[in-house]
Amino acid sequence: MNPTHIEHLGIAVVSLNEAIPFFETLLGTKCYSIEEVADQKVRTAFFKIGQTKIELLEPTSPESTIAAFIEKNNGRGGIHHIAFAVNGIEEQLASAQEAGIRLIDSKPRKGAEGLDIAFLHPKSTFGVLTELCEKK
Amino acid sequence: MNPTHIEHLGIAVVSLNEAIPFFETLLGTKCYSIEEVADQKVRTAFFKIGQTKIELLEPTSPESTIAAFIEKNNGRGGIHHIAFAVNGIEEQLASAQEAGIRLIDSKPRKGAEGLDIAFLHPKSTFGVLTELCEKK
Repeated sequence: MNPTHIEHLGIAVVSLNEAIPFFETLLGTKCYSIEEVADQKVRTAFFKIGQTKIELLEPTSPESTIAAFIEKNNGRGGIHHIAFAVNGIEEQLASAQEAGIRLIDSKPRKGAEGLDIAFLHPKSTFGVLTELCEKK
Repeated sequence: MNPTHIEHLGIAVVSLNEAIPFFETLLGTKCYSIEEVADQKVRTAFFKIGQTKIELLEPTSPESTIAAFIEKNNGRGGIHHIAFAVNGIEEQLASAQEAGIRLIDSKPRKGAEGLDIAFLHPKSTFGVLTELCEKK
C-alpha cells in the first residue's frame, strides 16, 4: 500500500459545542467547517494542522458507532481513527485485501468533505481503526 | 498555543516483531529506527508518512504505562497519543497552563529521537493523551 500522508485524525467527543473551543486553543486555529454526515450519524468539526486535519465527531444518535465508542470509553471521548490519504482508493483496497487485511468497506463510499472513504477492520490492523480516503 | 504539525502518533502494540511487518505493508515504507526508551519502559519503532511519524510502542515491563493501556484495552493495542511539534516548548506549556489545561509534565524531559517532550493530562484534553515536542 502507498498512502501519501495522514489526511485526518478522528476524535470522538460527547459535545462539539464543548470541545471546539478547547481544540481551537490547543491547535491555535479556528474550526473551519461543521458538517453533519447523516450516513454515519455524526456531526463533524474540522481543524487544519500542517498536512493533517483534526475531525471531531459527535454522535447524533445512540446508534452511532461514535456513541458506542464513547460508551465503551466510560462516557468519555478519545482518539477514534486514523485516515490516510491515498491515490487510487480502489487499488489500495485491493492491495489491503491481498495483504490479508479485513475490510469494513469493500468499496469506497462518500464521507465528510466529499471524500471517497473506506475503513479497514481494526481486528486486522492491530486495534487501530484505519480509514483510507481520496479526494477525486 | 501554536503547534506547527503532528510530529507523531503513538500506537501501543503488544509486540514490535509482530506489528512492524504489518505497518510496513500499510504505510508502504520501512521502519527506519528502533529505540528503547528506558525512562518510559518501552521499545519504539518509527515510520515516516508525510510530515508525521508513526511511533509503535511496545512495553518492556508490566509497570509501563503502555502495558496498562493494553491491559485496559482487553489485551489489544491501539492509538495511544498524539504529539504536536511546537517551537518554544516551555512557553507552550505555560500557555497550556494559562488556558486551564492540566499538565503531566510541568517541564520538558527527553523522549525518543532526542526530542524535548511533555505530556498534557487527558482529563483536561477531552480524553486525548497529548504530547508536545520540540527538536532543539
